[in-house]
Amino acid sequence: MKEKVTIVKVGGAVVEDDQQLEQLLCDFSAIEGRKVLVHGGGRKATKMAERLGLETQMVNGRRITDTAMLEVVTMVYGGLVNKTLVARLQAQGVNALGLTGADANVVKSHKRPLKDGIDYGWVGDVDHADGQMLSNLIEAGIMPVMAPLTHDGEGHILNTNADTIASETAKALAPYYDVTLIFTFEKKGVLRNADDDDSVIPTITHADFERYKADGTISGGMLPKIENALSAVDAGVSRVIITHATAIGKTGTVIMR
Amino acid sequence: MKEKVTIVKVGGAVVEDDQQLEQLLCDFSAIEGRKVLVHGGGRKATKMAERLGLETQMVNGRRITDTAMLEVVTMVYGGLVNKTLVARLQAQGVNALGLTGADANVVKSHKRPLKDGIDYGWVGDVDHADGQMLSNLIEAGIMPVMAPLTHDGEGHILNTNADTIASETAKALAPYYDVTLIFTFEKKGVLRNADDDDSVIPTITHADFERYKADGTISGGMLPKIENALSAVDAGVSRVIITHATAIGKTGTVIMR
Repeated sequence: MKEKVTIVKVGGAVVEDDQQLEQLLCDFSAIEGRKVLVHGGGRKATKMAERLGLETQMVNGRRITDTAMLEVVTMVYGGLVNKTLVARLQAQGVNALGLTGADANVVKSHKRPLKDGIDYGWVGDVDHADGQMLSNLIEAGIMPVMAPLTHDGEGHILNTNADTIASETAKALAPYYDVTLIFTFEKKGVLRNADDDDSVIPTITHADFERYKADGTISGGMLPKIENALSAVDAGVSRVIITHATAIGKTGTVIMR
Repeated sequence: MKEKVTIVKVGGAVVEDDQQLEQLLCDFSAIEGRKVLVHGGGRKATKMAERLGLETQMVNGRRITDTAMLEVVTMVYGGLVNKTLVARLQAQGVNALGLTGADANVVKSHKRPLKDGIDYGWVGDVDHADGQMLSNLIEAGIMPVMAPLTHDGEGHILNTNADTIASETAKALAPYYDVTLIFTFEKKGVLRNADDDDSVIPTITHADFERYKADGTISGGMLPKIENALSAVDAGVSRVIITHATAIGKTGTVIMR
C-alpha cells in the first residue's frame, strides 16, 4: 500500500489574516504524515506593486507580468510569503522547506505564448513537475512549501497560477503516494444551496457531477473548479477536497472517481 | 578520503552587475564536484528600501533591521536575489536549490541582544548550521544557494551576515567533507603591496600571518578577514581562499593551517 501525502493549497488572503493563518498552520501541522503546502499571494503582490508605483493589470483573473511585476512577484511569493510560512511552520515543529519551481528544478514551465492577442508577459504554463525529486525531499523528512513561481530552464522565473502548481504537484506525486489534494476557498465546500453555508455536498463523483450540472445545483464558477478536481482524480490523485482554509480536516466536499 | 565540497561566498555587488554575474555563474558551474553558493544582497536591499520610502541605517557595517526592513530583506535576499541565482544556475545545468536558514532548519540563530546600547532589531547571530541536513541535500545531487537569512525557531526570520553564513556552513560541513571556502571581495587576493593588484600572496599560514602582521604587510580591514579565515581553518575547514568574484579557480590567497 502507498503512503499517504496531503497537498493543501491556500490563497494569499489567509496569509494576510493573522488569525486565519494561525488556525491554518495549526490544522496543517496536525495533518498526520507527509504533506505539501502550496500558497498564493496575489493580494500582497498587488499591495507591494502599488507601494512601488506599479499598476496591477489582470486579464481573466491572471496577472499581466512585465519585468517590473516579475520582480515584485518573485520578491513577494518567493521571499516574503514563502519564508514567512516556512519560519512559522518550523516554529510548529514542521520541517518546512520553501520551493519555487526553479529550486531543484521541481516545476518547469514555458512562457505563455500570445493568447487571443493578449501578452501575459512572464507567465508560465507548466510542462513538468518532478514527482521523483519531490518525493526524495519528502522521504528525507522535509515538507515542501511551494510558491506560485516556476522557471523555463533558460534562466527566467515565471509567474504561475498556484492552483495549477497544486494540481500538477498532486498528479506528479500520484505514482508514489496515495494523494489527497485540498483546495481551500471562501466556502466550507461545494454547497447544495448557495444561501446555506452548511449545505455542503459531502462527495461528488463523475456521475454526481453530471447530475448536479443537469439539475442546476452546480453552476458558474464552481464548474471549472470541479472539472479541474475531476481531471486530477482521473490522473491518479486519490481524492480532491474543496473546503475553507479554516476547516481543513473538518468538513468539505470530497471529489473522487 | 573525504569528498571535496567548495563553498563560494559572493557579495551583492556581483549579483547587480550582469557581466560579473555571468562570469561568476560560468566559473561557479565549472567547479567540479559538490558546491554551495552563499550570497549577499545588501545594495539591492538598500535600493528597494529607498523605493519603499524606508531609510537604511547601518551601524558597524550592519543593517539596523526593524520590522519594515525585515520585510525588505526577506523579499530581496530570500526572493529576488536568491531565486534569480537559482534560475540562472539551473540554466547552466546546475541543480541549485535556494535556502534561507529557516528552510529545512539549516541555520538557526537567536535575535542579537542589545550591544553597547544598540538595538540591531531582527538581526540573528548563528547558533547552529545543520551539516547533516546540508550534506543530505548535497548527496541528493542538490547545490544549495544560501541567502543571508536565518530563523530563531519561534517563527521569526532574522537578517544574518552572509560571511557568517558562509563560515558557519563551512565549519558544519567540515566533518563530512574536505571543505574549501572561497570568500570573494574586490581584490584578487591578499596583496603584498596595496598599490599592486598583482602582488597576491599565494598562501598564508598562522606563522605567515604573525610575520605579515608584525612587519606591517597585512593591516587594517584585512586583519579580521584573515583572522576569520584562520578560525574556520582551525575548526576543520581545509582551506579558505580569498579572491575576486571573477577570479574563482584562477588566482587568490589560500589560507591554511
